[in-house]
Amino acid sequence: MEKLVVIGGVAAGLSAASAAKRLKKGDLSTVVFEKSGYISYGACSEPYFVSGLVPQPEDLIEITPEEFEQKRSIPIRRMHEVVEIDYKNGYVTVDDLVNHRSFKEQFDYIMIATGATGKTLGVAGEKLMGVHTLRTVEDAISIRHSARNAEDIVICGGGYIGLEMAEAFVSLGKHVTILKKTSQMLLNFDSEMSALVEEEVRSKGVTITTGVDILSFEGHGRVEKVVASKGEVKAEAVLIAKGALPNVDLAQQIGVKIGVTGAIAVNKHQKTNVERVYAGGDCAEAYHIVRGKPAYIPLGTTANKAGRVAGENIGGLNTEFPGIVGTAVSKIFDLEVARTGLSLKEATGDGFDAYATTIRHRSRSKHYPGGYPITVHLITERDTRRLLGAQMIGREGVAHRIDVMAAALHGGMTAEDVYHLDLGYAPPFAPAWDPILIAANKARKA
Amino acid sequence: MEKLVVIGGVAAGLSAASAAKRLKKGDLSTVVFEKSGYISYGACSEPYFVSGLVPQPEDLIEITPEEFEQKRSIPIRRMHEVVEIDYKNGYVTVDDLVNHRSFKEQFDYIMIATGATGKTLGVAGEKLMGVHTLRTVEDAISIRHSARNAEDIVICGGGYIGLEMAEAFVSLGKHVTILKKTSQMLLNFDSEMSALVEEEVRSKGVTITTGVDILSFEGHGRVEKVVASKGEVKAEAVLIAKGALPNVDLAQQIGVKIGVTGAIAVNKHQKTNVERVYAGGDCAEAYHIVRGKPAYIPLGTTANKAGRVAGENIGGLNTEFPGIVGTAVSKIFDLEVARTGLSLKEATGDGFDAYATTIRHRSRSKHYPGGYPITVHLITERDTRRLLGAQMIGREGVAHRIDVMAAALHGGMTAEDVYHLDLGYAPPFAPAWDPILIAANKARKA
Repeated sequence: MEKLVVIGGVAAGLSAASAAKRLKKGDLSTVVFEKSGYISYGACSEPYFVSGLVPQPEDLIEITPEEFEQKRSIPIRRMHEVVEIDYKNGYVTVDDLVNHRSFKEQFDYIMIATGATGKTLGVAGEKLMGVHTLRTVEDAISIRHSARNAEDIVICGGGYIGLEMAEAFVSLGKHVTILKKTSQMLLNFDSEMSALVEEEVRSKGVTITTGVDILSFEGHGRVEKVVASKGEVKAEAVLIAKGALPNVDLAQQIGVKIGVTGAIAVNKHQKTNVERVYAGGDCAEAYHIVRGKPAYIPLGTTANKAGRVAGENIGGLNTEFPGIVGTAVSKIFDLEVARTGLSLKEATGDGFDAYATTIRHRSRSKHYPGGYPITVHLITERDTRRLLGAQMIGREGVAHRIDVMAAALHGGMTAEDVYHLDLGYAPPFAPAWDPILIAANKARKA
Repeated sequence: MEKLVVIGGVAAGLSAASAAKRLKKGDLSTVVFEKSGYISYGACSEPYFVSGLVPQPEDLIEITPEEFEQKRSIPIRRMHEVVEIDYKNGYVTVDDLVNHRSFKEQFDYIMIATGATGKTLGVAGEKLMGVHTLRTVEDAISIRHSARNAEDIVICGGGYIGLEMAEAFVSLGKHVTILKKTSQMLLNFDSEMSALVEEEVRSKGVTITTGVDILSFEGHGRVEKVVASKGEVKAEAVLIAKGALPNVDLAQQIGVKIGVTGAIAVNKHQKTNVERVYAGGDCAEAYHIVRGKPAYIPLGTTANKAGRVAGENIGGLNTEFPGIVGTAVSKIFDLEVARTGLSLKEATGDGFDAYATTIRHRSRSKHYPGGYPITVHLITERDTRRLLGAQMIGREGVAHRIDVMAAALHGGMTAEDVYHLDLGYAPPFAPAWDPILIAANKARKA
């Protein structure tokens, strides 16, 4: 019987294990090793666990180990870390972190779904109690504990996680300061769009200081202050939210190719360059359809899909993951903030001759009570008028409208094509000329 | 100077007038004749005016005649009905309905935007006070008045307007009965989907009786009861909501071709077969991209677009309206009800070898509080696996998700293509596998 060893028990790992097992059934023995105490958790919901909106750590779990083992006939080994792969002899070495013992497990296929680690700053005091990064459920539990006992909280970084966590901390009544090296929040938005988000975050009482270098964290055992280039900030809890670093050490041990992004390079079958070794999720690249090359955008949706494709190929099918277009949505205080494709900066950086257009239009019919303006920012290629990207911000009606633009990117649509889309209209949900159409009309004529 | 006569002052007429004038400026004299007392009204908002959510008739107006005349330099003649077109001699005859006089107006171009009339039943008593159809603002005012003085209201018909009006009447505390000839509400949905809507409407206290022929309306001056094949129903107000009949009489006078749908046939430039005569809006057909032939689906969004294209062509551009895919969205009590493309019935009727698949999945992440199931019904062509249509019903997250499916139809996507869409994920707005992806996965495998 063939043996599949899955390293990592969250989105990509479990999707791969399930898909392969579903196809090969009794002909495939599968085991999942997860070094943390939790599998199948929704990392995107962790800010809501910290705020208390999601009450228990267990509420972050999609499927429990017991359910998974029973439904899929796949054993789950939590608190088990794969520390070495002996590719030539066909086994991995596993540390059982609870019982402090090591053992070897034979494999025919490996699925590397080792995820990512929160980037740190490399400054003194990062190991102090109360200084956190946020990836695992354990991280979230520990931040929730720190936050509840803190008065002042500093967030280093102004990406989605930093801003969602700012909301969580504010909802707990904390005084929150964001320290940011660059002048802009949400670097994968163009600056006029991220400025709208910054305004919202400030309006909720968060202090934002930009152009700041963090020099050290200081305190006696537990953090007491952040020492930064623009002065010191009191903090009994700190979240470092500088993005994710793919966990590629194990892959590198056996000569798996790492892409220019620093993450594991895979083909559309989620195969690495090493025979019988697949990868997916936050440790791996994904093909970016608009850029026409791999990108590193670690997200749960991509991990689910990549994992399933890996599992289907291990299971004997021949399926491909066509790739991503870089869609991301976030709730930041009262705003829905969404993007897909490339920002103008990214498009220009990729060598596209592109331009940006921005409009503001209401979320509902003007006849219908309520409703708020939505700002729509489109990136269009000059010659072809092909849509390259979209960003939207508003208080309602943004989170799914961005998906229309994602579909347009998948379809290679021009601004003219988008302008002609037959979108739904009903006064409670949209004006007769939807903001998307207004935006596309401006883009096609610009 | 050339002269454009626009017949009809709502979506298509005003869009055409504006676009033509914007292009030709002083070289084009334009006049708009509107036989009702209102221009530029949002007919889709009329149910909310009847309920009182939209307080005044003026709140239904997108742009007032004064604003329009001032901004666009186009005179608006309300309460003016064009009663005859003398094509050979190049003038129209206009009845001034206020001053009871007639006059002739010369034209070089005509834009026919005569709209539609609510279908009636052709039974006795339709002229009684309190028996209504709903198209114009005057209709809405009159229904609001009738409804406020009624205890029991009967709605003949179970389409969008009938059901939206049922909600309005219920919100006014009225006892509402829907009498329906066919066994199904919302005939352009497949029956398992419309059953969900029917269940919602009944749960709000509306009596629905199907398989009913209306025989007559009876009363002394004002309606008192509806006499139907299954008995009599007390009613101090009646709404006949059986759909729309395109107003084509004027067009027919001058030999404009009427399509098989009964509405005016136009090409993609919105030109009729008669030189210098354009048409658009609820009196005209539109090309249906999925069906590959013209259809009659009178909606404000289509009227806006068709009118603008007509005006651009009158203005000297060469622009095309690529067509519609049949997207429609409605709020029916607490449900968002949406569809695009073809239903299974329609697809089969059109000769497609098609199948339907239905799934139910949550609107938000299961980790996030709130959220409701969304039912997604997809119609797929058997051989090609091309998506032909989609229907969605749920309490949230439906109204814009349908637009993703509309974009997919425009792009000619297969179920497989839709399954691979990189849709946004954030716990407050969607689960990691969006209902759209779950639905497409089922459709691609079926």
